[in-house]
Amino acid sequence: MNERAVFFLSDQTGVTAETLGHSLLTQFDGQTFRQVTLPFIDSEDKAREAVQKINESTGEGAAKPIVFSTLVQDEFRAIVRQAKGLHLDIFDVFLEPLEIELQQKSTHTAGRAHGMSDIEGYMKRIEATNFALANDDGGVNRNYERADVILIGVSRSGKTPTCLYLALQYGVYAANYPLTDEELDKGTLPAILLNQRKKLYGLTIAPTRLRQIRKERRPLGKYASAQQVRYELREAEKLFKKYSIPYVDTTEFSIEEISSRILDSKGVERRVRP
Amino acid sequence: MNERAVFFLSDQTGVTAETLGHSLLTQFDGQTFRQVTLPFIDSEDKAREAVQKINESTGEGAAKPIVFSTLVQDEFRAIVRQAKGLHLDIFDVFLEPLEIELQQKSTHTAGRAHGMSDIEGYMKRIEATNFALANDDGGVNRNYERADVILIGVSRSGKTPTCLYLALQYGVYAANYPLTDEELDKGTLPAILLNQRKKLYGLTIAPTRLRQIRKERRPLGKYASAQQVRYELREAEKLFKKYSIPYVDTTEFSIEEISSRILDSKGVERRVRP
Repeated sequence: MNERAVFFLSDQTGVTAETLGHSLLTQFDGQTFRQVTLPFIDSEDKAREAVQKINESTGEGAAKPIVFSTLVQDEFRAIVRQAKGLHLDIFDVFLEPLEIELQQKSTHTAGRAHGMSDIEGYMKRIEATNFALANDDGGVNRNYERADVILIGVSRSGKTPTCLYLALQYGVYAANYPLTDEELDKGTLPAILLNQRKKLYGLTIAPTRLRQIRKERRPLGKYASAQQVRYELREAEKLFKKYSIPYVDTTEFSIEEISSRILDSKGVERRVRP
Repeated sequence: MNERAVFFLSDQTGVTAETLGHSLLTQFDGQTFRQVTLPFIDSEDKAREAVQKINESTGEGAAKPIVFSTLVQDEFRAIVRQAKGLHLDIFDVFLEPLEIELQQKSTHTAGRAHGMSDIEGYMKRIEATNFALANDDGGVNRNYERADVILIGVSRSGKTPTCLYLALQYGVYAANYPLTDEELDKGTLPAILLNQRKKLYGLTIAPTRLRQIRKERRPLGKYASAQQVRYELREAEKLFKKYSIPYVDTTEFSIEEISSRILDSKGVERRVRP
């Protein structure tokens, strides 16, 4: 069978449809999907255009497309429904039980979920991102009093992307501090970290994986050598244990998983949920 | 009525449940929700713990909790179902039609969507994030040949968070370049940008909003003055028009919306959809 086309339809960004669709599709092994996002379907013309694109994807003998849709406006939804395909629509399914439970009609207005309806939440995410950048890599600010969490670990253990994700996704203030050779040699953490001990969370990673990542950055020299990598990771884990700092091995985890584990472990409140 | 409790239950990160729930709840105005994410429900004990937490939230006269769930394992799902609340479960609703259409049983394994099943996709996101950081603010690398898109605009128009989001969410290589006074005065773009003209995308923003953002950063001096802000934005828009560079006013848009518009406008392929 051909590669199957999957469409994510939205009257706004498509993020919800993509997230939902991706979650479901990962439950099916061995299938290949050609994924297309069609965002901002906010007019009859655009709805018809989407129908055309979907129908064009189903040539002779092609598998039926799968259409994940989060259109809230009934008129556009009705048009899109005419496209060939298996239609899976979260508003179709979940709005009614929510309306009954909340005893309130839904507004059926587009552009709410990832829009600016919550401008305060938006500003929090931006500020948290600026905080993460200013407090990245033990850098410039070291404004650790304001931090919700401070990630520590050796170079390239995943600290920066995790901090940025925590900021952009949840508005959480995450700083990070790279453990230096000096700290690893001495086996002590600096006062600036120990003053915020409750906020500390450690990242570690498998030596082979870390070497692979470091080699891409700096192929030669001590930095990516097997000996150095093993030494740093061993000493870092000793430090985590010495100070009872919770930590996670990031080798098998995605950014989302690491982030979720950190928030869960530290009891940090998500400021926003976009 | 009391603030209503909303739970996001997951055997992994909770990102899908949060995204779905948030999309739906924003369709109801004037309600206040107390939101709690319970991730990593991957054992009977944890499932029972979740039930307890949910039931505890419903005291005398409290509104029924709403439970968004993405548990894929039937045994844990059955336990969680015993909690009081309105249960909305995407796997309950959508897995069966997908199984029929794909003529395949779903794997019912946890931890797929935001897990490391797709290690290649994960590495792409990390690499794109490193690219965004190295090519931020016209900085260090200026490796514009590798960029999928180059955002240009005046200081604080939203370039950095947008680039980081594009990287983390979609694995897209986004660089950004801040327009300098010199470029605005002369009304010309530097050769390094003009060589990549097809990749350019402009960001603009309302003067009042920009002043507000800049004031928080540097309250005094020319940087946040009404005159300077208006001048910069006017000249930047002139540049966009002169070179026929598509641009968006970020004032009313979230990071997700800006990102989605850029990808849509430039026809940039999403490398991953987490």
